[in-house]
Amino acid sequence: MKRTIFGDEHEAFRDTVRQFFETKVTPQYPDWEAAGHPPRDFYREAGALGIIGIQVPEQFGGAGVESYKFNAIVTEQAVRAHISLGPLRVHMDLVLPYLLEYATDEQKQRWLPDFVTGDLVTAIAMTEPGTGSDLAGIRTTARRDGDEYILNGAKTFITGGYNADRVLVVARTSPADPDNRRTGLSILVVDTTSPGFEVGRILEKMGLKAQDTCELSFSDVRVPAADLLGDEGRAFAYLGHNLPQERLTIAVGAWAAASHAVELARDYTSERNVFGQPVASFQNTKFVLADCAADVAAGQAFLDNALEAHDAGELTGSDAAALKLWMTEMQARVVDECLQLHGGYGYMSEYPISRLYADARVSRIYGGTSEVMRSIVAKSLGM
Amino acid sequence: MKRTIFGDEHEAFRDTVRQFFETKVTPQYPDWEAAGHPPRDFYREAGALGIIGIQVPEQFGGAGVESYKFNAIVTEQAVRAHISLGPLRVHMDLVLPYLLEYATDEQKQRWLPDFVTGDLVTAIAMTEPGTGSDLAGIRTTARRDGDEYILNGAKTFITGGYNADRVLVVARTSPADPDNRRTGLSILVVDTTSPGFEVGRILEKMGLKAQDTCELSFSDVRVPAADLLGDEGRAFAYLGHNLPQERLTIAVGAWAAASHAVELARDYTSERNVFGQPVASFQNTKFVLADCAADVAAGQAFLDNALEAHDAGELTGSDAAALKLWMTEMQARVVDECLQLHGGYGYMSEYPISRLYADARVSRIYGGTSEVMRSIVAKSLGM
Amino acid sequence: MKRTIFGDEHEAFRDTVRQFFETKVTPQYPDWEAAGHPPRDFYREAGALGIIGIQVPEQFGGAGVESYKFNAIVTEQAVRAHISLGPLRVHMDLVLPYLLEYATDEQKQRWLPDFVTGDLVTAIAMTEPGTGSDLAGIRTTARRDGDEYILNGAKTFITGGYNADRVLVVARTSPADPDNRRTGLSILVVDTTSPGFEVGRILEKMGLKAQDTCELSFSDVRVPAADLLGDEGRAFAYLGHNLPQERLTIAVGAWAAASHAVELARDYTSERNVFGQPVASFQNTKFVLADCAADVAAGQAFLDNALEAHDAGELTGSDAAALKLWMTEMQARVVDECLQLHGGYGYMSEYPISRLYADARVSRIYGGTSEVMRSIVAKSLGM
Amino acid sequence: MKRTIFGDEHEAFRDTVRQFFETKVTPQYPDWEAAGHPPRDFYREAGALGIIGIQVPEQFGGAGVESYKFNAIVTEQAVRAHISLGPLRVHMDLVLPYLLEYATDEQKQRWLPDFVTGDLVTAIAMTEPGTGSDLAGIRTTARRDGDEYILNGAKTFITGGYNADRVLVVARTSPADPDNRRTGLSILVVDTTSPGFEVGRILEKMGLKAQDTCELSFSDVRVPAADLLGDEGRAFAYLGHNLPQERLTIAVGAWAAASHAVELARDYTSERNVFGQPVASFQNTKFVLADCAADVAAGQAFLDNALEAHDAGELTGSDAAALKLWMTEMQARVVDECLQLHGGYGYMSEYPISRLYADARVSRIYGGTSEVMRSIVAKSLGM
Repeated sequence: MKRTIFGDEHEAFRDTVRQFFETKVTPQYPDWEAAGHPPRDFYREAGALGIIGIQVPEQFGGAGVESYKFNAIVTEQAVRAHISLGPLRVHMDLVLPYLLEYATDEQKQRWLPDFVTGDLVTAIAMTEPGTGSDLAGIRTTARRDGDEYILNGAKTFITGGYNADRVLVVARTSPADPDNRRTGLSILVVDTTSPGFEVGRILEKMGLKAQDTCELSFSDVRVPAADLLGDEGRAFAYLGHNLPQERLTIAVGAWAAASHAVELARDYTSERNVFGQPVASFQNTKFVLADCAADVAAGQAFLDNALEAHDAGELTGSDAAALKLWMTEMQARVVDECLQLHGGYGYMSEYPISRLYADARVSRIYGGTSEVMRSIVAKSLGM
Repeated sequence: MKRTIFGDEHEAFRDTVRQFFETKVTPQYPDWEAAGHPPRDFYREAGALGIIGIQVPEQFGGAGVESYKFNAIVTEQAVRAHISLGPLRVHMDLVLPYLLEYATDEQKQRWLPDFVTGDLVTAIAMTEPGTGSDLAGIRTTARRDGDEYILNGAKTFITGGYNADRVLVVARTSPADPDNRRTGLSILVVDTTSPGFEVGRILEKMGLKAQDTCELSFSDVRVPAADLLGDEGRAFAYLGHNLPQERLTIAVGAWAAASHAVELARDYTSERNVFGQPVASFQNTKFVLADCAADVAAGQAFLDNALEAHDAGELTGSDAAALKLWMTEMQARVVDECLQLHGGYGYMSEYPISRLYADARVSRIYGGTSEVMRSIVAKSLGM
Repeated sequence: MKRTIFGDEHEAFRDTVRQFFETKVTPQYPDWEAAGHPPRDFYREAGALGIIGIQVPEQFGGAGVESYKFNAIVTEQAVRAHISLGPLRVHMDLVLPYLLEYATDEQKQRWLPDFVTGDLVTAIAMTEPGTGSDLAGIRTTARRDGDEYILNGAKTFITGGYNADRVLVVARTSPADPDNRRTGLSILVVDTTSPGFEVGRILEKMGLKAQDTCELSFSDVRVPAADLLGDEGRAFAYLGHNLPQERLTIAVGAWAAASHAVELARDYTSERNVFGQPVASFQNTKFVLADCAADVAAGQAFLDNALEAHDAGELTGSDAAALKLWMTEMQARVVDECLQLHGGYGYMSEYPISRLYADARVSRIYGGTSEVMRSIVAKSLGM
Repeated sequence: MKRTIFGDEHEAFRDTVRQFFETKVTPQYPDWEAAGHPPRDFYREAGALGIIGIQVPEQFGGAGVESYKFNAIVTEQAVRAHISLGPLRVHMDLVLPYLLEYATDEQKQRWLPDFVTGDLVTAIAMTEPGTGSDLAGIRTTARRDGDEYILNGAKTFITGGYNADRVLVVARTSPADPDNRRTGLSILVVDTTSPGFEVGRILEKMGLKAQDTCELSFSDVRVPAADLLGDEGRAFAYLGHNLPQERLTIAVGAWAAASHAVELARDYTSERNVFGQPVASFQNTKFVLADCAADVAAGQAFLDNALEAHDAGELTGSDAAALKLWMTEMQARVVDECLQLHGGYGYMSEYPISRLYADARVSRIYGGTSEVMRSIVAKSLGM
């Protein structure tokens, strides 16, 4: 069915983004992959086109648009252009809501104008080597010392850590209360040029080759108290606040990947002949792609429904969990089937479907595993 | 997510229907099951409440509402009340559109007022013993003889054939053109009291025990030419016209069944203890139901999207095929999982989940099998 | 691949059984279904042919064969003849091992000769309305009173309870030790003609229409102490002893059903034409059946491997749990696909595939649900 | 269940292989991955240990063992050591049978002694850029010119092409008969040092990073007629002869990968804590691994059954197709689930499960896709 949630202003924006990717990113994308991360210039170019600052209020240099749909468009077009944009998504979809909601005016004035232009790139660091989705187990500490915090610890799986100028680090600012493990955590907006801040290995991954996933370590990093985000000790609550959007972001990418995989497989099988006829003419090809297309159609309705709800401020954490769970499982099914229809070429990295497949495998894991999503959905059922 | 497509008038109607089922149908439903079909009175009661005539123009005694959403509500509530309403669905969702679109004013005047009150019950007869979804292979014939047609042949799998006063019979009125097998078919609105019209066996089915699936046979049944619907020879085109709504109807029931199954399983597992704790407290129970709930949530968005599109006249045959395909496959997955969570009780007919399961198995078959739906969807992909 | 575990003596026995079912059971099977249980004569006829007593030592009138393979043959042929043989399976596969292992010579002398001839039919009663797989929660009590036990309580889901002359009832003979809930249970071989023994409802099920699933109740039933099986208080250990064979029995039936379903679908689709060609000639039909056939081939190897291991006394409880789990899940997949290939006829009870489907749904539940099997397998993995 | 097909001599061989991999391959494996293919020395070391020549008759320097089980052991141990051994498998499992069956004594004398020591490494080249599984469409030509053939054309997807000294090239030696496209193909054992023989790109793949998949091209390569294998024009029949073993080889690897994945996931989840308890202690982890373990147990029986049948000369092409189809689909399911249980670490290339996953994706494609296997199995069902 036709999508009904986008208007002319969205389509114009979509054109801008598409053209930007085509002319500025695709030609140099092999370099991104070789480097294992996007170049710094990319952010400034995206900033200059107004892509980064859409949701930033005008007083800080942005467009002041109160809708997430433009963000969704950026993700959709990146998938269709075969570009991994994880670090930009972290910057725009994950970090910005924290800054808009919890930064003081002084902090906004300091950070947002450069955020918009791409001169200040951000990342967020929650996961630690010993903890996965269990935030209450965080062991990085930030001890108050006069006007500063002294930060010690290590983080892992940090998307975009390589280029980041500021990293939102979740750290323990007071000992865990055994009765309420969720207390005592705070968010510091750490300057990555500070002494003691180190970017460790860029982890080698199955896919998403052009975006970095880093280890970070902090050895007596001195963070000005002025860079504390929001109130001390309230990080756990803050982290919960942005979860719907984080899950939605992953769902957007998952749907776009599934949708694009169907197009790739339809096109490939239409052109490729075996036994003297196009692969697309075999009943099995038709039936497999029909199932995939139906899954994508269901996903489109689910996603667009969620995008509308999110703009209306009504997308709950459990709604978004169900969405992320379903969409990434659907992505896995569909991309797998579409690769299969490519035969041996589907396994060759030069074919986009091969990369869609390798990239897809992390969707069911990051931003909360499918298992964590199931727990959240079950809770919403009253179980 | 909250459903957004229904307003106050729909909720009021939903209450009426719910109450009607609770007070008038549920108490006597065991009799329906024993008889294998609904009683004639049921139609008159439904008619008296204004349920049947919603979409019939006011001049013929109906409410003149141009929306299918009320029909959807009837189906949803029937599922939740554990009532098989196939024959009523045929009457309201399948037959009525033919009458509204192709009957002459004279015919409408003759048939619709009684249609609305439940005094005239209808069914439709396409499938023949030797043909399934292949309508061009129909062998029932209607030979013109003066002001009458003489009808000969047999039909099978006729839902509601037992009670019907008028059956829309698809018959061959002129020989098949070998170059275009779709020509030469017509629809006759046959009076079931005509000599030579016989209701054969009520077929025994795995589920849907309270609705009849009949064989019909016609031996020189004389049908007045005045009871021809639309133009002679154009049945094939007519039949295509109502396919979106037929598929939508099945999708509504499939979604409602899946949605209700999740509620049944959640409630059952919350009350049932094993090894000293509620079944609902086991992680497996939670995870299985979370997957089901996510499927139902995706289905809700997909369905409501389609209901809106249908009311706007924009639901295409292939959209509806993707919807029916996806929804009935989803129903199968979800109802199966929810039955499993009932343990041994899930296999006992007195538990509603058992009947939801037996009923569900036909969804992927009737109204066009999943295989036929896949063919249609593939065609819409340009394959 | 060719099966390699059967020799000439097995094939001869298979012929006997096939012929018996064909000539003596199939013609009267509609009566079984109408009655909801097999007739008493069936057991005597099976006994006369030597089918029941295969594993009973010669001194008690049996054939003294120490192999389970003949039992497997009976189950396989019953499935292929479309006959539900649950009560006979309980008699031969479930109850007999208890009698052989735990009955005294005096008891064997009293019971086994009639067991072999079919004059004494047995059943076993573990499950209670409030307990499923949790045997330690059993609340039926047997209080010792002189030379007798006084039995009170209720059981449910008792296969073959209607015809049984003796039922092995698991009852609590001493209060549950809170530290070890498994103590205090005993098995009584209860004479069903005893005052106070009542067969309650025959439960209506989705499938398995020709075999009864009963409720039993005991009101001060006096059971001679001489009918205690084995030692008082050791039932829990005894029940564990026969679990491999119980699970194996279900796996045999599940495999046979899947295997037969493939044959039915292949035959049906070869004969049935749509759009002018046999359904079997469509690529989808071929691919679906190929997947089913591969599943059945894997299942055959798995099953035959287990049958060999069982005859060698080496089939562990967890091996059998993995087998039952896998085989019944495979049965569900395969029978569902094969039904789908029948189109509308697959939903009609007169088609064997329809009954295979309705029968199959309980395989994943009885004899320990798939969930219980998974727990057992996980434990064997050291988890 | 315990495997029963291996004896002491197999276990001794398994130890040799395990030790070889541990001490000689694992330490230098990162170099293999960086190079994209194994080093030449590897073959000589494997040869020196007697691994390569097992099935080669003693007169040509081999061990003369007429069993494929030792080959299976090599594959199983390679998987457990996380080593991609595709090129060695091609040499031992795919090429050798052609040489043993179709080479003349003179050819055997020339090639086999070096084959055994690893001084002569082989590969086989069937697939062409324009053809997949459709061998009849081969366009590489070999025109007879005196005592030589002149070879022209190109091949792709050649495993082990980089190191090969001799490549069995399937080429058209006479024009295709339009009535029988299978005629006119021959096999030439081409010396890779011949002028005009070129190894093109090593294709970049999703997984199997330490083994090369090459393009080959032939420009007027002169091949002595003495290097024709078997009779001219009979390649199509020859290629069919070894298909069971080729499929069996892939099935062995697929089963070993699934089996090892379960071990990896069990071990990882036992050590990894979340929310204060081992991941292995969650019911979901147990249930998922139980299903995987049951799949692996079924697979073991299926595989061992096939290995026995193959040694007995009774494994048909369609048996092997069903085996390959089922086993690789099972591998996909199991490896995917086991990766998921690793959370984010499962996506990091340093974790073996990540590589098992990327490697697994080609199993359903190479050696005949699942779709081709389904066609073969369906044919064996008489469809």
